Amino acid sequence: MTEKLPLPKKVTVCEVAPRDGFQAISTWIPTDEKIKIIRRLAQTGISSLEIASFVHPRAIPQMKDADKVVSTVIESLGGIDIRALVPNLKGAERAVDAGVMKLKTMLSATDSHSLSNANATSKDAQQKLTPIFDFAAKKNVTVMGSISVAFGCPFEGKVPVERLIEIISRYDAMGVKEISLADTTGMAHPKQVYESLAILQKEFPEMVYSMHFHNTRGMALANTLAALQRGVTRYDSAISGLGGCPYAPGASGNVATEDVVHMLEEMNIKTGINERNLLDASREISEMLQIKGDSYLLVAGPTSTLHEEKITKQKKVEQ
Amino acid sequence: MTEKLPLPKKVTVCEVAPRDGFQAISTWIPTDEKIKIIRRLAQTGISSLEIASFVHPRAIPQMKDADKVVSTVIESLGGIDIRALVPNLKGAERAVDAGVMKLKTMLSATDSHSLSNANATSKDAQQKLTPIFDFAAKKNVTVMGSISVAFGCPFEGKVPVERLIEIISRYDAMGVKEISLADTTGMAHPKQVYESLAILQKEFPEMVYSMHFHNTRGMALANTLAALQRGVTRYDSAISGLGGCPYAPGASGNVATEDVVHMLEEMNIKTGINERNLLDASREISEMLQIKGDSYLLVAGPTSTLHEEKITKQKKVEQ
Repeated sequence: MTEKLPLPKKVTVCEVAPRDGFQAISTWIPTDEKIKIIRRLAQTGISSLEIASFVHPRAIPQMKDADKVVSTVIESLGGIDIRALVPNLKGAERAVDAGVMKLKTMLSATDSHSLSNANATSKDAQQKLTPIFDFAAKKNVTVMGSISVAFGCPFEGKVPVERLIEIISRYDAMGVKEISLADTTGMAHPKQVYESLAILQKEFPEMVYSMHFHNTRGMALANTLAALQRGVTRYDSAISGLGGCPYAPGASGNVATEDVVHMLEEMNIKTGINERNLLDASREISEMLQIKGDSYLLVAGPTSTLHEEKITKQKKVEQ
Repeated sequence: MTEKLPLPKKVTVCEVAPRDGFQAISTWIPTDEKIKIIRRLAQTGISSLEIASFVHPRAIPQMKDADKVVSTVIESLGGIDIRALVPNLKGAERAVDAGVMKLKTMLSATDSHSLSNANATSKDAQQKLTPIFDFAAKKNVTVMGSISVAFGCPFEGKVPVERLIEIISRYDAMGVKEISLADTTGMAHPKQVYESLAILQKEFPEMVYSMHFHNTRGMALANTLAALQRGVTRYDSAISGLGGCPYAPGASGNVATEDVVHMLEEMNIKTGINERNLLDASREISEMLQIKGDSYLLVAGPTSTLHEEKITKQKKVEQ
C-alpha cells in the first residue's frame, strides 16, 4: 500500500453549464442572458468550456439561439478551450460557422439508449457521424468523441467495458484523440470507473480521456477520485450543479463545478480557477436563472471559511 | 499503477441516527417513537448501532430518555454491536445500567473546539475521561475513543496529524483499542484522509480505526473511498442523512446510510444490510419524524432500478 494517493498536480475542469445545464432548463433563457452567463463564467478562470449544443431547434428549443450566442461571445473568450456538441453535419457546419474549433459528437454506449436518443443502434449512430469527421478534417477542426451511459444504462444496466472498447476502436479509426466518458444517469461507482479506465488505458495508450460525471447517487466526487488515481486530468462539471433533469425534481444532474474545484484545490490539485470568484458566479447565475442551485458549496461554503457564529450554535449537536 | 483499487471485501456500517441523528432534531421525539425507529433499523440487517448519548438532559434534552429507550429495546437487538456515547462517569454508569456493553468517549482534536464543547482543553478533557475507563474496566465494558473535528476544525482550520497522534497515544495508554475519527463539520478531503490514516496506521499498527464522515461539502463518499483504500472497515452513517445541523438549514450532516451502503454494495463490498429494506426504512423513518430526508437514494433510487417511464422522458436532456 502506498503512503500517498497517486494524484495529478493539475487538471482541466470543463464548464458544461451553457450546454448540459441550459438544455435542462425548460423555461426559455433569453439570448443576452446566456451570453451574460458565459461571460461571467469566463471571469472565474476556467480554461475549458462546452459552450452550446448545435442540435435541431425542435429537439432542444433552448439551444435554437446557439449560433447567435456563440458567434457573439466567442471572440471574447480567448485562452479558453471552447467546444460545442454537434449531433450531425448540419450542427457541425453551424458550430464552425459560429467560430467553434472543437466539436464533440454524441453517442450512446447501449443500443436501447441510442435508439431512444438517436433512433439508431450505437454502431449505426456512430457510422452516421462520418460526415462530421470529413467536414472537420476539411476545416481543420478537432473532434472529440463522447460516449453517453458509458458505465450504466437505465434500460440495460451496467455497461461492460468491452462495449466501450468497441466504440472507442471505431472512434479511434475515425481519428478521435480524446474520448469523453459520460455517466449520464449517475450509475457509475468508483471501482468500476477505476477498473474500466485501467483496461481502456491499456487498450488505447495514446487516447486522452475526459470524465463527465452526474451526481445522481452522490458518487460523482468519489468517481472523480477514482479517475484521478488513473491519471485522468479532464473533468466536466456544471456551475450550481445545473443539468438536473427537470422531469425528476431534486434529482442531481451534473456534479457542481464549485464542489469539484473545491475538492481538487483542497487536495492541492491546481485548476486555475478562482474558488471564491467561482462561488460568487454560482450565486449570481442561480439568481439570474431563478433556480435554487444544487451544490454543497452554495450551502456550506468552502472549508476555509465557516462562520464562527454558526459554528458556536452548532456546538451542542456536534460530535 | 495497480489495475484494481485495493478495497476490503466486507465492512461494518454503524448506524448513528438514534444518537447523532436524533440529537440534531430540536422537536421532541416521543420515547416510543425512538424505540420504534431503532427496532425498524434493526430489521435492515445492520450489525452495528450507536444507540444513544448519555449526556446531561440539559445539554441535549432530546437524549433525556436514553435510559428508558435503551433498556427497553436492547434485549431485542441480539447480534447487533451496540454502543453509546458517554461524556463522563455518570453517563457511563447510566449506559451500563441500561445494558450497554460498549461505550464511546467524546474528545475534540483542537483546544478551541474542546473549550467550546467541553469547557476544557483537549488534553484536560481527555484526562477527565479516566473515571470512565476505570469504571468500564471494573464492569468489563469496552470503551472506544472518538476524536471530533479530527481533520478540520471550524475555529482552527486543518488539523495536523501530529495532533491526532498525541491524542491517540493518550487513548492508547488508557487501553483504547478502537478510534473513531470524526469529520464533524465536513472539512476532510480524500488526500488528507488517506495520508493521515497511512501515518496513524504506521504509528499505531494495532489500533482499529472507524470513520465518521459528514457530507457537508459532498466529499463523504470520496473520503470513504480513500479510507477503504487504507483498509479501514468501519464507517458511521445515519439513515436519511439525519444529523444535519438544525441551525444551518440544508447543510448536510452525517452521510446517509443508504448512500454509503449503495456505494459499498455496488463495489461488491459486503455490508450485510438489505439495500431495499434499508431504503424503505429510510422512507418510513423520514415520515415518522416528518423530515424530508437527505439522501441521494431517496430521490434517485438504487442504480439497479430506474423507472423506465422517467428515463424515457429524460432522453431529450441526456448527453
